[in-house]
Amino acid sequence: MNHTATARSWVEQANGHSDFPLQNLPLGIFSRPGEAQRCGVAIGDSILDLQAVLAAGLFEGEAKTAVEATVDATLNAYFALGRSARVALRQRLLELLGEHSEHQAALQAALYLASDCQMHLPAKVGDYTDFYVGIEHAKNVGKLFRPDNPLLPNYKYVPIGYHGRASTLRPSGTDVRRPKGQTLPAGQTEPSFGPCARLDFELELGIWIGQGNDIGQAIPIGDAAEHVAGYCLLNDWSARDIQAWEYQPLGPFLSKSFITTLSPWVVTAEALEPFRCAQPARPEGDPQPLSYLLDARDQANGALDIELEVLLITEGLREQGLPPHRLSLSNTLSMYWTVAQMVAHHSVNGCQLQAGDLFGSGTLSGAQPGSLGSLLEMTDGGKQAIELASGEVRKFLEDGDEIILRARCKRDGAVSIGFGECRGKVIAGN
Amino acid sequence: MNHTATARSWVEQANGHSDFPLQNLPLGIFSRPGEAQRCGVAIGDSILDLQAVLAAGLFEGEAKTAVEATVDATLNAYFALGRSARVALRQRLLELLGEHSEHQAALQAALYLASDCQMHLPAKVGDYTDFYVGIEHAKNVGKLFRPDNPLLPNYKYVPIGYHGRASTLRPSGTDVRRPKGQTLPAGQTEPSFGPCARLDFELELGIWIGQGNDIGQAIPIGDAAEHVAGYCLLNDWSARDIQAWEYQPLGPFLSKSFITTLSPWVVTAEALEPFRCAQPARPEGDPQPLSYLLDARDQANGALDIELEVLLITEGLREQGLPPHRLSLSNTLSMYWTVAQMVAHHSVNGCQLQAGDLFGSGTLSGAQPGSLGSLLEMTDGGKQAIELASGEVRKFLEDGDEIILRARCKRDGAVSIGFGECRGKVIAGN
Repeated sequence: MNHTATARSWVEQANGHSDFPLQNLPLGIFSRPGEAQRCGVAIGDSILDLQAVLAAGLFEGEAKTAVEATVDATLNAYFALGRSARVALRQRLLELLGEHSEHQAALQAALYLASDCQMHLPAKVGDYTDFYVGIEHAKNVGKLFRPDNPLLPNYKYVPIGYHGRASTLRPSGTDVRRPKGQTLPAGQTEPSFGPCARLDFELELGIWIGQGNDIGQAIPIGDAAEHVAGYCLLNDWSARDIQAWEYQPLGPFLSKSFITTLSPWVVTAEALEPFRCAQPARPEGDPQPLSYLLDARDQANGALDIELEVLLITEGLREQGLPPHRLSLSNTLSMYWTVAQMVAHHSVNGCQLQAGDLFGSGTLSGAQPGSLGSLLEMTDGGKQAIELASGEVRKFLEDGDEIILRARCKRDGAVSIGFGECRGKVIAGN
Repeated sequence: MNHTATARSWVEQANGHSDFPLQNLPLGIFSRPGEAQRCGVAIGDSILDLQAVLAAGLFEGEAKTAVEATVDATLNAYFALGRSARVALRQRLLELLGEHSEHQAALQAALYLASDCQMHLPAKVGDYTDFYVGIEHAKNVGKLFRPDNPLLPNYKYVPIGYHGRASTLRPSGTDVRRPKGQTLPAGQTEPSFGPCARLDFELELGIWIGQGNDIGQAIPIGDAAEHVAGYCLLNDWSARDIQAWEYQPLGPFLSKSFITTLSPWVVTAEALEPFRCAQPARPEGDPQPLSYLLDARDQANGALDIELEVLLITEGLREQGLPPHRLSLSNTLSMYWTVAQMVAHHSVNGCQLQAGDLFGSGTLSGAQPGSLGSLLEMTDGGKQAIELASGEVRKFLEDGDEIILRARCKRDGAVSIGFGECRGKVIAGN
């Protein structure tokens, strides 16, 4: 597909600095006002309605099967078709949306401005698993609790993860209601009940599972990448005060389950191919992965080079007409485990993965200043305030604050692609 | 409904020592060989096909609505209808299956021997949450890790729970494949990979959620019981060696997610009414629940008195024609929190519960000898072997071992009801 590296679209807005050039072609579920939800592909500032293109007779073979699978306005069945159907649909969309397309007139009628549409969750998530593969985050959080021994002994052997709440996954733009819960105030021995006072975000990569496996049948590491359909951004909103009191011994629960926000576009595994790279070398002295997690191809090309950005908008910044405050610029290269290793580990006990399952990477903090993925880390556990150009200060999020996650892939010789936004605004509890 | 306390059914086998007398009427999803799955009610040794009874015109009003809601062969939509529909269906089934029924001939044609049918999961579980409300279990397990301080400081304030895996919930009778995973052998500093060597069961009560709540809207404790549709038995199979190595800091993951077995019949909240009782008094010195968990009616009548039994069958016992070995006789009165408290806590942060969500109670060990809910506890962490009449000994489960959970409610003046079996046989890993 080398010819696609520089190809342009007849949708002019896709050819500038857009998250969605011809080389991206992410799928999502959208609706126009008063109309039903359906599957579309993002191109520049627009959305192409795939059901309308199907009705116009412009798909055949595997690409047609792929679009037909989205008839229920979820991508689950499309994910289940696997890589071959994704590739076929992508190839056909490259033709249809490329500058030499013969079908511009017909397609124009199925093209809507994204700003006129609402986005929804792309799939019905069976199970959502949150990993913890951002090693800098694990060290930073560990340091707050165990200064001399931040990483637990299992971290460099086990891609640590835990089950998250699927029912409160929401698309970008959904308000984040400040949760209530039990907390143990400093110096007290008895808990109080009330609104969370240490509300935080977590910058994560979301991973959409494609073809699943049967119960009892592990997915070998060499096959694992084939089971990933695509990617999104994920904000794992966290109530730090609730978390600190509840999480022993079984892990975080209500401190996370009030909402988790996703960017709505599924950036396919194929679109990310040019941005794969070798897994960064493990530091001297770190153990090799156990054999069920070790694959030469995965080591050579299984990591992802995606730049991640976190922006904060406050009422003060808004009122003073100031730009968003950049809280962080990070990268998926901070992942200690590859996505294939996460898939192989998750299924090694026979656990069944299903099309439309979602993984979170865990918070992706970098080792450099300005690359942290949560306020907990940036403020050293709430001790150091962040100063904004508006004169406001923040240790944790206040009502009215808005967090925007963005992601962008750049590489010499490849057209840059983005993920769109993962956005959420904090509102008062009720 | 006092007249139902002694009422008999024209299905004769329901009137003896059956788990499913007229007073029970649990719903489930069954199939006959080569036929589609559909909703039925257990009565004695038989299953009444509710779709067939519907087709015969024997339901009307809310009872009809309730049965119509099961047309997709899950109970999710029926659960969503709430208590009023459950009560209407129960009332009609008491008439139809009672000894004075006018419709015996028509119903006989819709009645099948349960032994000729296969049972399936009763609902499509959106999210499965496993609690930890068995305080004796929490103490026993805590003692193995922290002899001087078995209960963590949050235990008596927080109904501890965590998210479990929904995709590997399976109905009674499904084989349990021994999982593989990472473990840290005693005395080693590096983990090994291989089959679980400390495979265990956990005796739990399963709780089916009926009507849910919107995201951001907590369910008050006074309303919480109304959101419970029914109950089952749940075996939270556990790989103790995998669990010990993986569970810090985010909780159990692959040590649990290989399979979780459910008894297939949903014993309704209404059938359990006669077996509700006052929450046992908290020991002197224990704190009162925080106000969002405290309700006078719940304290007075929110606990459940259900006898729980665990049986073990081994190849040795089978070959020698010996009866199953009773491992435990326990009771749901060992729950430190009521089911209503679990519902109120789960939603207090605004987490959305949905019809067909499932809770596990956590392991229900009693304080008395012979009432423990896991082998980990019975063998003091694998140190004391259990001797069987066959001459075999067990610390953990071996391939070929079968665990059967049973439950029975008994009370003076009430007909005893049971839950049916929750059964699973361990088979070798692959």
